[in-house]
Amino acid sequence: MFAIAEKVTIAQQLIIAFQKIVGEQFVFTDEESLINYSHDETETLSFLPSIVIKPRTAEEISSILTICNNERIPVTPRGAGTGLSGGALPHLGGVLLSTERMNSILEIDERNLQVITEPGVITEVLQDAVKAKRLFYPPDPSSRGSCFIGGNIAENSGGPKAVKYGVVKDYVLNLEVVLPTGEIIWTGANVLKNSTGYNLTQLIVGSEGTLGIVTKIVLKLIPLPKYDLLILVPFQSLEKAGEAVSAIFRAGFVPSALELVEIDALKIVSKMVDSYAVPIHDDIAAHLIIEVDGNNQEILMQEMEAISELLVEYDAGEIFFADDAQQKNELWKLRRRVAEAVKMAGYLIEEDTVVPRAELPALIKGVKELGVKNNFHAVCYGHAGDGNLHIRIKKEGVKDSMTDKGMIENLRELFKLVKKLGGTISGEHGIGLVQKEYMDIVFSEQHISLMKQIKKAFDPNNILNAGKIFN
Amino acid sequence: MFAIAEKVTIAQQLIIAFQKIVGEQFVFTDEESLINYSHDETETLSFLPSIVIKPRTAEEISSILTICNNERIPVTPRGAGTGLSGGALPHLGGVLLSTERMNSILEIDERNLQVITEPGVITEVLQDAVKAKRLFYPPDPSSRGSCFIGGNIAENSGGPKAVKYGVVKDYVLNLEVVLPTGEIIWTGANVLKNSTGYNLTQLIVGSEGTLGIVTKIVLKLIPLPKYDLLILVPFQSLEKAGEAVSAIFRAGFVPSALELVEIDALKIVSKMVDSYAVPIHDDIAAHLIIEVDGNNQEILMQEMEAISELLVEYDAGEIFFADDAQQKNELWKLRRRVAEAVKMAGYLIEEDTVVPRAELPALIKGVKELGVKNNFHAVCYGHAGDGNLHIRIKKEGVKDSMTDKGMIENLRELFKLVKKLGGTISGEHGIGLVQKEYMDIVFSEQHISLMKQIKKAFDPNNILNAGKIFN
Repeated sequence: MFAIAEKVTIAQQLIIAFQKIVGEQFVFTDEESLINYSHDETETLSFLPSIVIKPRTAEEISSILTICNNERIPVTPRGAGTGLSGGALPHLGGVLLSTERMNSILEIDERNLQVITEPGVITEVLQDAVKAKRLFYPPDPSSRGSCFIGGNIAENSGGPKAVKYGVVKDYVLNLEVVLPTGEIIWTGANVLKNSTGYNLTQLIVGSEGTLGIVTKIVLKLIPLPKYDLLILVPFQSLEKAGEAVSAIFRAGFVPSALELVEIDALKIVSKMVDSYAVPIHDDIAAHLIIEVDGNNQEILMQEMEAISELLVEYDAGEIFFADDAQQKNELWKLRRRVAEAVKMAGYLIEEDTVVPRAELPALIKGVKELGVKNNFHAVCYGHAGDGNLHIRIKKEGVKDSMTDKGMIENLRELFKLVKKLGGTISGEHGIGLVQKEYMDIVFSEQHISLMKQIKKAFDPNNILNAGKIFN
Repeated sequence: MFAIAEKVTIAQQLIIAFQKIVGEQFVFTDEESLINYSHDETETLSFLPSIVIKPRTAEEISSILTICNNERIPVTPRGAGTGLSGGALPHLGGVLLSTERMNSILEIDERNLQVITEPGVITEVLQDAVKAKRLFYPPDPSSRGSCFIGGNIAENSGGPKAVKYGVVKDYVLNLEVVLPTGEIIWTGANVLKNSTGYNLTQLIVGSEGTLGIVTKIVLKLIPLPKYDLLILVPFQSLEKAGEAVSAIFRAGFVPSALELVEIDALKIVSKMVDSYAVPIHDDIAAHLIIEVDGNNQEILMQEMEAISELLVEYDAGEIFFADDAQQKNELWKLRRRVAEAVKMAGYLIEEDTVVPRAELPALIKGVKELGVKNNFHAVCYGHAGDGNLHIRIKKEGVKDSMTDKGMIENLRELFKLVKKLGGTISGEHGIGLVQKEYMDIVFSEQHISLMKQIKKAFDPNNILNAGKIFN
């Protein structure tokens, strides 16, 4: 889908003002640039901004927002553009504000186990930088090789490690934020505990760039675990795999990753990634990928053996033990590329459902039943340990889940099931543009109204990423 | 200090309306009841409410708040009244709303490792209930034997275990909240990851009963660790003790508790609690209490030995190893009773400063220097692993830190030092009534204005716990 937003014309004198703020070479109005910044990784959606600006500092962003606030120009902040819910799409035109030049890691504070970074740093670059000092920043979305840490904060991203180590929100200590009205604040302090006023830090995390633009980030780090072990476990039944997930935690184990890949997804990805390790037989319904980590290899071995024994009770098939770094990498590569492979196979947008962990079997079963009822095919994969199930749907004749009315109805039915199971629409992708249609399923009118009032307190003129999360 | 708030007269017909909502026997206007609910654990402050109401359900609270909102009657919510910042003080008179009857643990969900509870459950009761099922709810404020879980959420409480396991906010998944306008909402979903709309759950946690009244709480639980080990370590220098704290984490260890007790505090508490274990010599400046926990005793022993070796580099004295449950309990009893003992010895309100962990030595040194300069004596103790230092001050002629102008100036100087070190005013007690005087030290005017606008979005008529956190 390619749409041109209702044209917001930026007066020549404002373009000159923006050029004065950031430098001429960082303001773009040529067609190629506008097209480059018109899309993210959300399906095929594309909206042209009126102008692309690439500031370097919080002060520059403050000046830009002050102008836009006075002139009521829509502003869409953007990280790396890897989002899956359309948060960075400039659907109203106006200013596309890219944080790509704010890409310095400012300080790795080894004394306090903290890192201070700008938002435009690639997540994996940050992880590697702290890893070199034997420190660990766990949140690792599949896109970590290209996504920005600022975008991760906007969406409250997760990834496989979340099951043991938590998501982005669990690592953010303090944020420098430029408010839509141009003020610059720090939300908290660089401390591990804080009961001083409302928790604006946590309000900004996951607010999808609608409340302010994050310009500096203080993250908590933890000591890097020395070892990890990885196994791949086939199951003949999806339900049994789901039950096994719960049983592992109930037995007192906390794996550092516990992923589920349904066989249909695996069949698709295995055509793309060559992996001798993964058995694909007709009697396999799904695989679990289980990782444990820690500082004592012997203990890890014992733990993995105990987990393996437990899995037998749930009719697990032959367990494949990744012997070395290469085999581990191969397995992870396979897992990380599932989304891409399934997308390439013609499946629609990746849904991001999340339910209480033990409801996962019921969710998978329900999704399959809905598929039969509504004539779609769904493949499931995701972070089973968190109850966070990604679902991609393929339905004949449907090219775009956002505008196809039948598909919208199908998705409403799916999200109602998720809600009924105690879950919600998004575990780690955010609502953005494409999921706001479904907010009424999980929130009451008053609840949404309260969110809107919070938005208004931060952004009285509704200039910043307006029309995301809710209308 | 005993003050009678500006009299809010509750009309007889409203009293009857309240009686109809909760039952006659749960509405109190007699002097004894009003006095009982006029104070919490904050210094000697006391304010009489006009009426005490003890509802049983969210619906009853909704009806009460609807009336109070229409009639503009101040409402002060109250848990167990163990707060240290005056959050439960009815300083404006009006309705004192006690949650003490909402004291049921509704469900321990062993499949999902969650507990659903009402707010009036005593924290330790909840901990014991889940422990019986080999599950663990770690946040453990010193008052855990009497405080309510609802109050813990209001203040975002911590305790010794926070250093490894995090504070209350890290365990709250979902909250049922009655808004000041009477609506009842659930803030999120019972899931481990959530990127669906603004994080109202985290906004409510630590909001000190100013945004809504929490009526149901869904908490994440974790598997109960099987073993723990505890040591007590004397240091000749406070700075060295502080440096040792940082070094432990830097070496890759994450103790389950890492407490510091200055010798002055220990001298006072040892008169109250008999403990042969704790050496008090003239050449000791402070003790560290260090706990590790996990599922493998042998590994824990190795860990503790490695920590002990590391401590020698920081001039640690002879390490006392708590041999059995009794010795461990004794040590913890000593630690937990420090606050009470120091208070009884005439020290003023417990300050709740928090700085980045490695700045702890600088903070302690600064506090002592300020004491010399401003003629006060300060004792320090607290959660050193988190950089959360409690400070109690004794100054001749000062009986009340809230109204004594000289003391207010001394505290401003202290909090400015905390801010300079990258820290903030409260790590786990909240701001309430007694710390709001100092909010301008850590927050800009715009920042406080933003908080006030959030307050207004929730509570347009400012009826709920008004005048707490800010005026």
